[in-house]
Amino acid sequence: MNNLDAVQAHIQKIITHYLPPRDNHYPELDDAMRYALLNGGKRLRPALVYFTGNIVGATRDMLDPIACSVEMVHCFSLVHDDLPAMDNSDLRRGQLSCHKKFGEDVAILAGDNLLSLAMEVLSDQKNAPISAKIRLALIHMLCKATGSEGMVGGQIMDIKSNIHYNQRILKKLHSLKTGALIKASMMMGASCSPSPLSTEELVRFNKIGDALGLLYQVCDDILDVNADKNILGKTAGTDHALGKYTYVDALGIKEAQKYANQLRHSVKEMLTPIARRDQIESIIEYIYTRTIT
Amino acid sequence: MNNLDAVQAHIQKIITHYLPPRDNHYPELDDAMRYALLNGGKRLRPALVYFTGNIVGATRDMLDPIACSVEMVHCFSLVHDDLPAMDNSDLRRGQLSCHKKFGEDVAILAGDNLLSLAMEVLSDQKNAPISAKIRLALIHMLCKATGSEGMVGGQIMDIKSNIHYNQRILKKLHSLKTGALIKASMMMGASCSPSPLSTEELVRFNKIGDALGLLYQVCDDILDVNADKNILGKTAGTDHALGKYTYVDALGIKEAQKYANQLRHSVKEMLTPIARRDQIESIIEYIYTRTIT
Repeated sequence: MNNLDAVQAHIQKIITHYLPPRDNHYPELDDAMRYALLNGGKRLRPALVYFTGNIVGATRDMLDPIACSVEMVHCFSLVHDDLPAMDNSDLRRGQLSCHKKFGEDVAILAGDNLLSLAMEVLSDQKNAPISAKIRLALIHMLCKATGSEGMVGGQIMDIKSNIHYNQRILKKLHSLKTGALIKASMMMGASCSPSPLSTEELVRFNKIGDALGLLYQVCDDILDVNADKNILGKTAGTDHALGKYTYVDALGIKEAQKYANQLRHSVKEMLTPIARRDQIESIIEYIYTRTIT
Repeated sequence: MNNLDAVQAHIQKIITHYLPPRDNHYPELDDAMRYALLNGGKRLRPALVYFTGNIVGATRDMLDPIACSVEMVHCFSLVHDDLPAMDNSDLRRGQLSCHKKFGEDVAILAGDNLLSLAMEVLSDQKNAPISAKIRLALIHMLCKATGSEGMVGGQIMDIKSNIHYNQRILKKLHSLKTGALIKASMMMGASCSPSPLSTEELVRFNKIGDALGLLYQVCDDILDVNADKNILGKTAGTDHALGKYTYVDALGIKEAQKYANQLRHSVKEMLTPIARRDQIESIIEYIYTRTIT
C-alpha cells in the first residue's frame, strides 16, 4: 500500500469483509451500509493509517482492520451529517446521499451501525496480530476522535456556527470536526510500531496530524467555493449557503489560498526528520492540489 | 448494589462522571446527553450487570464502568428510536423526548456521542482493574449487542414490521431489539468473575439472558396496551398505533399474559442451580409485576 490509488482499490476490495453476514429479514440495512462504504470515497484516512504504519514498520495485516474501522467511522459521520436535520445534503460524492436513497430511518440506523461496527472490528481478537493493550489504545483513540472532543463536537459547533465566530473558534471547530480523525488515523498507524515510539516521535506525529487536519480543512473550504458540482460530487457553495462560517469567509479566497500554501510547506518541514516520508508527502500534495482543480 | 432502588440511586450519582468535560463552545451537547442519561430510567440493564457480577464475585469498581456503558448504549438507542424518522415519540419516561427538547440535530449527535462514549469508557485503562483482554471482550459483546445482530437489527425489523410477521419472526425481532442488550448486560457482569467460568456456567447465563429478554418484551407489549400514559411515561397503545406487530397482536391479551407468566416461571427454574440468585429473581418479579400495575 504505497500510493493513494492502491489504497482506494484495496479498501474497496476488503472493507465489506468486515460487515456482519447479510440478514434477509432486513436487507435494507446491509444495502445502506454497503452504499455508504463503497460510493467512491477518497480513502484519505485509510491511506494515512497505511502510510504512517509503513513509516514505523507495521505490517499490512495489522493495518487492514484499523484502516477499515477508521473509514467506517468517517462514513458514519457523512451519513449522519447529510441528514435533513443536519446539513440536508441530497448529494454525496456525486450520488444520492444515503437517506435520499434508503430513507432517513434506514440512514440513521446504518450510520449507528457503522460506528458500532468500527469498534467491533477493532475489538475482535481474530482481526490482526496486535496485543490486547494496543488494540484497546486504538479503540480509545478512535472513540476520542469520534465524540465530544472530536467529530461530534465539531459537527455541533458547525451546526451552531455563525458570523460571530472568529478564526480561533473556526480553528477549534475544524480541529474537532475534521482534524481529530485525520490525526487519529496517523496515530493509530503509528501505534502499530513493532517497537515502542519515543516521546519525541509521538509528539512529532501528533503535530503533523494536527497540521494535516488544518491543511485539509482550509483546502476543503476553498474547494467548496471553487469547484463545480461535477468535480466536488456535492453542490458547490453549500457551506456558505448553509450560513456556515468558513476559512474563505474569514480570510477571503486569495488569503485562504495563501494560507493553504503556507500550511503545505510547514507540514512538509515537520516531516523532514522522517526517512520514509514520501507517501505522506504525496498525501499533502493530493490535498493541496484538489484546491486548484 | 443489591436491589433495584440502590442501583437507580447509584447510577444517577455516578453516570455523569464518565462524561467528557463540558465545553462552553457547544453546551447543548452536554445538556442533551445529561438529559438523556438522567431522565429517570429504570436502570434495569445496570442492575443485571451488578447482580450477575455479584453472583460471580466481581467487585463494584469493576462493575461501575460496565454498568454505565451499558446504560449509555441503552439511552443512545432510545434517543435515536424516538426521532421523527423512526418512532416519532414526543414523550419518553413522562418527559419530552430528547429531540423535542433540544432539536433533532442535537439529539442525533447526542445519541452518536453516547454510543461512542460507552466504548470509550470501556477502553479507558484508568476505569477499573480489569485486564486488557477482558476489557476487549466486554467491548466486543457490547458492540455485538448494539449492531446488526443486536439493537440496530431489531430496530430496523421493527420499523419494517407488518402483519405478515409470524411469532417466530417476532421472537427474532425482539431477541435483537431488546434481548441482545439484556443478555449482554448479564454476560458482561459474568465476565468480571475473578476465576474463569466453566462452559456450563456460561451456557446457563446465556440461556437465562435470552429468556429474560423475551420475558421483558412480552411484558412490555402487554404494558403498552394496558398502562395509562402517566404510569408508562409515554402514550399507551403507541406500538399498535404505529402498526407494529406485538405479542398482544400475535396472541391476544389473555394469552400474552399467560405466556408472560410461563416465561417468568421458566426463567426462575433456570436460576435454581445458582446460589446467590435472589437479586436476579427480584428483577424477574419487577419485570413481571409491571404488567399488572
